Amino acid sequence: MSYMEMTKQELMKLREELLAAYEEKKRLGLNLSMARGKPEDGQLELSMPMLNVINENTSFIGGDGTDFRNYGVISGTAEAKKLFADILDVKPENIVIYGNSSLSLMYDTISRAYIKGILGSTPWSKLDKVKFLCPVPGYDRHFTICEFFDIEMINVPMDENGPDMDTVEKLVAEDESIKGIWCVPKYSNPSGYVYSDEVVKRFARLKPAAEDFRIYWDNAYCIHHLYKDNQPEILNIVTECEKAGNPDMVYEFCSTSKVTWPGSGISAMASSVANIAETVKHMNAQIISHDKVNQLRHALFFPDMDTLKAHMDKHADIMRPKFEKVLEMFDKELGGTGIATWTKPLGGYFISFDGMEGTAKKIVSMCKDAGIVMTGAGATYPYGKDPKDSNIRIAPSFPPMAELIEACKVFIICVKLVSIEKILETK
Amino acid sequence: MSYMEMTKQELMKLREELLAAYEEKKRLGLNLSMARGKPEDGQLELSMPMLNVINENTSFIGGDGTDFRNYGVISGTAEAKKLFADILDVKPENIVIYGNSSLSLMYDTISRAYIKGILGSTPWSKLDKVKFLCPVPGYDRHFTICEFFDIEMINVPMDENGPDMDTVEKLVAEDESIKGIWCVPKYSNPSGYVYSDEVVKRFARLKPAAEDFRIYWDNAYCIHHLYKDNQPEILNIVTECEKAGNPDMVYEFCSTSKVTWPGSGISAMASSVANIAETVKHMNAQIISHDKVNQLRHALFFPDMDTLKAHMDKHADIMRPKFEKVLEMFDKELGGTGIATWTKPLGGYFISFDGMEGTAKKIVSMCKDAGIVMTGAGATYPYGKDPKDSNIRIAPSFPPMAELIEACKVFIICVKLVSIEKILETK
Repeated sequence: MSYMEMTKQELMKLREELLAAYEEKKRLGLNLSMARGKPEDGQLELSMPMLNVINENTSFIGGDGTDFRNYGVISGTAEAKKLFADILDVKPENIVIYGNSSLSLMYDTISRAYIKGILGSTPWSKLDKVKFLCPVPGYDRHFTICEFFDIEMINVPMDENGPDMDTVEKLVAEDESIKGIWCVPKYSNPSGYVYSDEVVKRFARLKPAAEDFRIYWDNAYCIHHLYKDNQPEILNIVTECEKAGNPDMVYEFCSTSKVTWPGSGISAMASSVANIAETVKHMNAQIISHDKVNQLRHALFFPDMDTLKAHMDKHADIMRPKFEKVLEMFDKELGGTGIATWTKPLGGYFISFDGMEGTAKKIVSMCKDAGIVMTGAGATYPYGKDPKDSNIRIAPSFPPMAELIEACKVFIICVKLVSIEKILETK
Repeated sequence: MSYMEMTKQELMKLREELLAAYEEKKRLGLNLSMARGKPEDGQLELSMPMLNVINENTSFIGGDGTDFRNYGVISGTAEAKKLFADILDVKPENIVIYGNSSLSLMYDTISRAYIKGILGSTPWSKLDKVKFLCPVPGYDRHFTICEFFDIEMINVPMDENGPDMDTVEKLVAEDESIKGIWCVPKYSNPSGYVYSDEVVKRFARLKPAAEDFRIYWDNAYCIHHLYKDNQPEILNIVTECEKAGNPDMVYEFCSTSKVTWPGSGISAMASSVANIAETVKHMNAQIISHDKVNQLRHALFFPDMDTLKAHMDKHADIMRPKFEKVLEMFDKELGGTGIATWTKPLGGYFISFDGMEGTAKKIVSMCKDAGIVMTGAGATYPYGKDPKDSNIRIAPSFPPMAELIEACKVFIICVKLVSIEKILETK
C-alpha cells in the first residue's frame, strides 16, 4: 500500500511498530557491512588453485627470451596482453599491462595528463580550469581522483541506457576545459545499467572542443555477469572510436581484481597505439616493470576464454542468490509503498537504491546506529553531494547470506521509518 | 707501465696490436651486456622456494582480521611492516609498504610533492623553479624522474665518504628552490661508496631554506654485501634526523627487488609518522591496497633477520667472484697504466670506472660495435652529461662468469685503444 495514501493515524501507528522493531535490532549489537564491492570468502576460495599454476617446473622464460623473474618488459608480457586483448576484444598492440590496481592506472593516466599533457597538449597543471563530466550516480573513487587533481566535476544524468548524450555532446562541444568523462559502461556502479549501442556510438562520435578530451571507460564489470543466459554485451568502444575517426579519444580500463583476488590481480588499459605508446614512454620514468610473475600466474590460470568464463560462472553462482534475495526483500517490503525505487542489475556488484528526497543521509545514519554500515549517502555523487539526498548504493556481495538478510531487514526498517517521518512533515 | 711515459712509437705499436685484438673480438659476433644491475639466473633460483610458502594450508587472515586476498590495508600488512622495520631499524609506525617497485614509490613521492605539496607547502607545479642536488656519479633513473618533473639538477661531487657536505650545506641553506637531494648512502650506485657517520650526521643536521626540502635516501643496497666479514654499516638516517630535530626531513626507500625477484618483490618507505600519514592520505586517491598476498609471501619467506641474512649470503657467494674477477682483470691489465681508476666496492651492484677525460663515450661505442653493451656513457650524470666524459658504470652481475670475462676483455682492449688515441693527440 502506498504510504502517501495512508492517513496520519495509520502512519503514526506504523511508525510506532517500526520504532519498536528498530530498537529490537539495535539491541542485537550487529556489526555488518553492505558498504563496499568486496567479494565474499567463497569467491576468494575460487582462485586458490591459482597458487599452484606456478611451481618448480614452470618456465619463466617469455617468447622474447626474458626471464619473468627479472627486470624488464615494461608494457607487460605477451601472455598477459593476450589475456586482456581477448577479454576486451582488441589487439595485443592496443594493450598495456599495469600493476595490481586499475584504480592506480586511472589515477596515473590522469596524473600524466596533469604533469605532461596528452599527445602534445598543454599539461593540465598549467591550465586555469579542468573539468570532467560525471554521469550520476557514479563511483566515488573516480570522484576522489578528480578532487585530488582539483578537477571540477559536472553531474550528467543517467538512465538505463547510459548517460544523457544530448547533454554530453553539447557540453564537450562548447567547453574546451572539459577534458574527460568517467564511464562504467557495463553494469554501471552503482546502477548496474548497461550502455546501449546508440549511447556507445554517440560516445565514439563526440566532437569535443578539447583535443585532449578523453573518455575514461572503466570497464570494471565487463565479465561480471549474474546470469548465464542473460548477458548483455556492449559495443567495443575502442573499435567504435577507430571507426568514427577518433581512435585516440578513449582509455579503457580493466582488471582481474574481482576475478581472482582484489589487490593481488593484474590490470590493463586498452587504447589506440598512439595513446599506448605515450603511456609506456611516460611509465619509463616511473617503473622498470610490473609484476611479471603475477602476470604469468594469471595467464596460466586463464589459458583461454572458456576457462575464464567457467570461473566467472562460479562467481555468478555465489553472487546471484544474494542479489535476488535483496531484490525479493525490497519487492516484498517496499514494493507498492511509493517510498523507494531500485535497480535490478544483471551483473556487477551493486544495486542503486533511491529513497524519497531528503532521506538518504538519515537512513544511512540510522543503519549505522544499528550496526549496519552502508556506503555513505552522497558517495555516489561528486563532492559527496547528492542534490536530492535520495541515492544509496547497496553492495550485497561481501556479507554471508544470513548476515545480508539481517542487514537488509534493518535497512528496510530504516527506509520505512525515515520515509514516514518525511511524509508526516507534510500531513 | 704508465702509457703517458711511453714513446709515440711504443704507443703506435701497442695500438696496432690492440686493433688486431679488437678486430678478432669483433669477428666473434658477441652479444653480451654489462649494462644494468640485474641479478643473474642463479640468484633468481635462490628465491624459488618462495613459491611454496603460500599454499592451501596458509592462513590469509591478518592480525586485524583482514583477509589478505581481499581489498583493504592500504599502508601494508603488519607482517610486511615488521620485515622492513627490522631491515631499516625503525619502528613499524615509521613504515609504509608499497608495490613491487621502490622506483615507483620514489616517483610517486615526488609526484605528490608536485601535485599537492608536502605537509602544507606550495605544490611544486605552482613554483617557477624546483631544483635537486645530485651527488655524481649517480643513478640514471633518479635523474630521469627529475627530468620528467622538469626539476633542475645540480651536480654535487662525491668521494669515498659520500657527497661533499660543504657544498650541500651551503646550497640548501641559501637556495629555497632546492627541494631535495638524491642519495644512495650504502654501496652507492655506481661507486659503491658508503657514507661515513660524519656525512650522515651532517645530512641530519642540514638547515635547508625550503621547509619542503627532503633527503631522498634510496637505501637500495642496504643488505647487499659482497663479504660476510666486511660489512660496513651506516648510521640510521631516520633516527639521526629525529635526534637533530629534523624528523620530517628524510624519506628512506628500500625494496626486495634484488633480494627475491625484480618486479615481483615488495617495497617500503621509512619516514616520520607525519610524513607517513600524509603519504597514506594521498595514496587513498590512488589505490585501495598493494599486493598483500605478495607481502605475506615475503613475510613468510623471511620470518626473521637471520633467515634474510642467510639468503643474502647466498647472493654474495654468486656476486663476489664476479666483482673479484673484474677487479683482478682491471688490476692486471690497467694497473699502472695511468689511464684509468676504478672503485673496489664491498657491496651493491656496480663498479665505477673512470677513464681519461674525453674517452668514455668512445669506449662505450667501441664496445657496442664489438657486441658488448655497457651502461651509456654519461648515464651516471644528470641530463646524460658527464662533464669530463670519463665515467663508465660497470655492472658485473648479470652475465655468467665466462661471458663476463669475455666482455671485460673487450672492454679493456677498448679502454686501452681509446686512451692511446687520446695520448697520441698530444704527442
